[in-house]
Amino acid sequence: MATTTLTGGPFSRSQFESLLKRRLFYTEAFEIYRTSPNFKGDNRGLFDYGPPGCALLANIVNEWRKHFVIEENMLEIDTTAITPEAVLKTSGHVDKFADWMCKDPIKGEYLRADHLVESVLETRLAHHRSAVADSKQKNDKLDDATAKEYEEILAKIDNYDGPELGQLIKGFDIRNPNGNGEVQDPIAFNLMFKSTIGPSAASPIYLRPETAQGQFLNFRKLLDFCQGAMPFASACIGKSYRNEISPRSGLLRVREFLMAEIEHFVDPEGNKNHERFHEVAAIELPFLDKDTQLSGKTTVDTMSIGKAVETKLVDNETLGYFLARVYLFLLKIGADWSKIRFRQHLANEMAHYACDCWDAELLTSYGWIECVGCADRSAYDLSVHSKATGTPLVVKEARSEPLEITEWQATLEKKLVGPRFKKDAKKIEAAVASLGQDALGSLAAELADKAVITVPTEELANGNTSVDLSLEICSIKRVTRVENTREYTPNVIEPSFGIGRILYSVLEHVHWHREKDAARQVLSLPVLVAPTKVLVAPLSSNANFKPVVKTLAGRLRALGIANNVDSSGVTIGKKYARNDELGTPLGITVDFDTLNDGSITLRERDSTTQVRASQDDILEAIKSIVAGTETWDQISSRLPIFAGQSQDEE
Amino acid sequence: MATTTLTGGPFSRSQFESLLKRRLFYTEAFEIYRTSPNFKGDNRGLFDYGPPGCALLANIVNEWRKHFVIEENMLEIDTTAITPEAVLKTSGHVDKFADWMCKDPIKGEYLRADHLVESVLETRLAHHRSAVADSKQKNDKLDDATAKEYEEILAKIDNYDGPELGQLIKGFDIRNPNGNGEVQDPIAFNLMFKSTIGPSAASPIYLRPETAQGQFLNFRKLLDFCQGAMPFASACIGKSYRNEISPRSGLLRVREFLMAEIEHFVDPEGNKNHERFHEVAAIELPFLDKDTQLSGKTTVDTMSIGKAVETKLVDNETLGYFLARVYLFLLKIGADWSKIRFRQHLANEMAHYACDCWDAELLTSYGWIECVGCADRSAYDLSVHSKATGTPLVVKEARSEPLEITEWQATLEKKLVGPRFKKDAKKIEAAVASLGQDALGSLAAELADKAVITVPTEELANGNTSVDLSLEICSIKRVTRVENTREYTPNVIEPSFGIGRILYSVLEHVHWHREKDAARQVLSLPVLVAPTKVLVAPLSSNANFKPVVKTLAGRLRALGIANNVDSSGVTIGKKYARNDELGTPLGITVDFDTLNDGSITLRERDSTTQVRASQDDILEAIKSIVAGTETWDQISSRLPIFAGQSQDEE
Repeated sequence: MATTTLTGGPFSRSQFESLLKRRLFYTEAFEIYRTSPNFKGDNRGLFDYGPPGCALLANIVNEWRKHFVIEENMLEIDTTAITPEAVLKTSGHVDKFADWMCKDPIKGEYLRADHLVESVLETRLAHHRSAVADSKQKNDKLDDATAKEYEEILAKIDNYDGPELGQLIKGFDIRNPNGNGEVQDPIAFNLMFKSTIGPSAASPIYLRPETAQGQFLNFRKLLDFCQGAMPFASACIGKSYRNEISPRSGLLRVREFLMAEIEHFVDPEGNKNHERFHEVAAIELPFLDKDTQLSGKTTVDTMSIGKAVETKLVDNETLGYFLARVYLFLLKIGADWSKIRFRQHLANEMAHYACDCWDAELLTSYGWIECVGCADRSAYDLSVHSKATGTPLVVKEARSEPLEITEWQATLEKKLVGPRFKKDAKKIEAAVASLGQDALGSLAAELADKAVITVPTEELANGNTSVDLSLEICSIKRVTRVENTREYTPNVIEPSFGIGRILYSVLEHVHWHREKDAARQVLSLPVLVAPTKVLVAPLSSNANFKPVVKTLAGRLRALGIANNVDSSGVTIGKKYARNDELGTPLGITVDFDTLNDGSITLRERDSTTQVRASQDDILEAIKSIVAGTETWDQISSRLPIFAGQSQDEE
Repeated sequence: MATTTLTGGPFSRSQFESLLKRRLFYTEAFEIYRTSPNFKGDNRGLFDYGPPGCALLANIVNEWRKHFVIEENMLEIDTTAITPEAVLKTSGHVDKFADWMCKDPIKGEYLRADHLVESVLETRLAHHRSAVADSKQKNDKLDDATAKEYEEILAKIDNYDGPELGQLIKGFDIRNPNGNGEVQDPIAFNLMFKSTIGPSAASPIYLRPETAQGQFLNFRKLLDFCQGAMPFASACIGKSYRNEISPRSGLLRVREFLMAEIEHFVDPEGNKNHERFHEVAAIELPFLDKDTQLSGKTTVDTMSIGKAVETKLVDNETLGYFLARVYLFLLKIGADWSKIRFRQHLANEMAHYACDCWDAELLTSYGWIECVGCADRSAYDLSVHSKATGTPLVVKEARSEPLEITEWQATLEKKLVGPRFKKDAKKIEAAVASLGQDALGSLAAELADKAVITVPTEELANGNTSVDLSLEICSIKRVTRVENTREYTPNVIEPSFGIGRILYSVLEHVHWHREKDAARQVLSLPVLVAPTKVLVAPLSSNANFKPVVKTLAGRLRALGIANNVDSSGVTIGKKYARNDELGTPLGITVDFDTLNDGSITLRERDSTTQVRASQDDILEAIKSIVAGTETWDQISSRLPIFAGQSQDEE
């Protein structure tokens, strides 16, 4: 927040993660069970957020709501995680929402196939590189062609299906790194948690793997709610669940996670233009497109989103608008711009419902992490749910000019059909109704020519799969009708946020340590999302400080500013150090001068500089920093700098 | 919000619920599936919140966070809903978290036993009462003793277990109202949703039925986080899941619901006093205690919480403090004070972990509804989890004065025990270690007397269940030790909020209709929680209004005030009526005078009175109403009343 550049030595993930756990940003769920000798269950991939993590999460969600929902008047809804099987059968998740896994029969372990290939090839490449650097390790050296092949495979690792992964595993003799055992062929494992609902246990349900379906199912009601105005967007913030095969990587691959998803419904005939696109067109974004990846490279190309849409790198304005808005959101909550890229999905990698997809990825010590997926789901979901339920999920729009349509129409003589075909009547009516314009055209000619036509049907009572219809029972004519309304199924652009992944990645981005002392870690979270905005610390446990501290905490609370009092017996330096690790941007100290003249000091986390002024002035300064109307540079140039005690050195 | 009293005719639930669904406060989840002909699943008890419901929910949660978490510096955490079986086995939920249900073998229906008894007896009593009023219906008349017996059963319906309910069903010939079939004996049905985690399907998990367990399991870390300071409270807001047998009653009995729970950890030796109790002691609360209920009555006794604790009606200050704070919270978000009561749980009704429990109940058209449970869970949860995991979940406190303890201590001669007892050695050591002070006292005398003692054990290798120990192998002496720290397991006071039930009940409380027109319904939600604070409405679709409307909406958004623009072609009266149903407290109209002099009108929902002033003055007025610094009465006495058009009559 001050203009100080984050410095310090190289990033150490173990030091960083130990900070997050020590300060209770998060913790393994059910840890006292997992560490108890008799526990046999699997609780990997489940994490609890402690007080600072929970507050950070809530602040990110609040900012998300402001940045997207309120700014664009989206219709936020709250839908259930429990989902009947029929819904997810229709959406394709029951059949296709799976990862490929291999069993190691010796260890009894299940490994995710793509991760297995990735980690083994990466390890071999790493050994190869150090062998190149140090000729003594020549056993690990690969020939150049193999090394190149590995690199190419890794660049498109998300593009392989199960059988292809199986071939890679066989071809490169890839084994379980734990014990070096051979693994079996990849099999598909559905990632949804299954249960049943109701006392009879006859109704299977799943925990939703995404919040999107609940939004699609409410489409018609939402369209009514916004009085038919298109385009519009719905949004949903809530937990989703994926039974990951072998979750590692801490908060980045978990089985229960908070998502925030937007479904923006748009008329496919308007080129998916967006009325506010001009507001973002000039923003430069870093792109990694699919062709670059397929050529085995990861070079990022930076250009304005305006140009990206113009050149069709990004398909349309609406998708482009959201990419830019996502970028602005990530910057606002603390992501480092140099560690953001937008990567286009490869064809095989795309979810079964998507027709184009760009991920906002954040660079972390685990590599580039998909944090926001921006998919064009086309009309897939609304169409399949509409078909499965017989409910029209369409927009009806008055046409500015009525549309005249002339087309073939077949009519059956109802009075004759029933008596003649009896039980088959419905099948025959359905068969005629399903005839397309081309078929009707030829049948009309045939009917005129032969006075009878043969129409294919479902199997009838007599075993036939067609029926002869004569002129007296069936007529086919050219008919002109006028359509005053246009009916269409909207397309959906979906920005989908993994809040936990964003939280973790941002924490890595804002982590550094003081130059003079690698143990003095700091989380430079923006004021906007910092769990606590102000530390209130008495210089010592002297009883005279207590009433001042209490008053200050009360005044901050009344201003709605989250604050923390630290009245423990440790030095003020230790109190600051603890709050640097908690990402608290501001610190008030109450000292002996406060008892004389009422003044207090205010310290800024990143620069560790302090000012000293009256309580009113300091509270006013805090208020404007929290509201974002003043920066620390402005505050520290208008209030007296305090250099009395170098408290940070204690 | 104005001082207008809510009026209108009698409450009609069907009219009310149709308003909530029409305005999309909530909707049945997966409705398009349920109504499609092929759907066979069970999706009862699952609801989605639409835009106004979702905003109301978020506002209630925000207020909850302010009123409880921030006001008391609680440690809010966010824990997973997925819970390993071992955790819920320990907590008792796997064995005891069940309802009793009866199967109707003819209809194939499952009925919750207590609800079956309740509804049948209530129906009979209703018929009886109308028979008393109208002598023609004499067949439905009960004899006085039976009517009285029914009433007494209903007053303590929550007190019966399964076999007792079975007896009532047999004794009073209670049948399934749907078809009048006899039902089978009640059986226990566990209410938790079960699934498995991980690819091997060997690890059973449940969806949590409450958020409490996640808080208990993090107790040790939370105690560390707050640097060991007792008492402290944790809090958690999140979804919980209960597989209700036969959910009806709309939002009041659902299978997936939002809870907000507080676990306040307190030293059991301090009488569970609370340092802020004096702040609430004078607040009068309406109590319905357990003795009154067991006597078959439902008379409410109103007294101050101070007196209630003094007289031990409410067990302790901490429990009392929370009852009062809960009451204030309910009033703040719009509950009607005359429809709130605190009902004490009966012994059989209490959850298996609780030692005392008071429910805040809200009166609705469904009767009195439990909305907040305030339970004293004693040390139950921490104790059982500690025992199951071998992890101490205790507070260690430095004693102000060291405690000297003199007691009997038995010591075994380790060198001899191993060789002599071999495999039995551990059992014998455990037997000696488990001897209490009284037993040790008598054994010491016996040992002094006979030089040998007999100690009961688990079954040993030779089949014996006791062992003889001689002087050389065992000594028992008086030993004095000094304890500098005190170790104790905290007790837990738990206020537990069902947010969806509160939301529904409050909506009933604030619902009324205009005196002149029963179709003109209003939801008088407090500004604090109203989904949208301001409607911005142009008088007509005249294009000249558009820029003013856009500017006003932008200015309100910049002030962080949720607003809604209605530019549809309907009359201004219809726009107001729609927003009365949405509970929008304020409405701005832009009309032709606005185009001349820039002034706009501001209308208050409950009184329908309006003021007219400049845009700056009106925005200032809105700001202070939303911030709670001015009331409508104050605004309308300082700004000019506008009576130009009686827009509400349109």
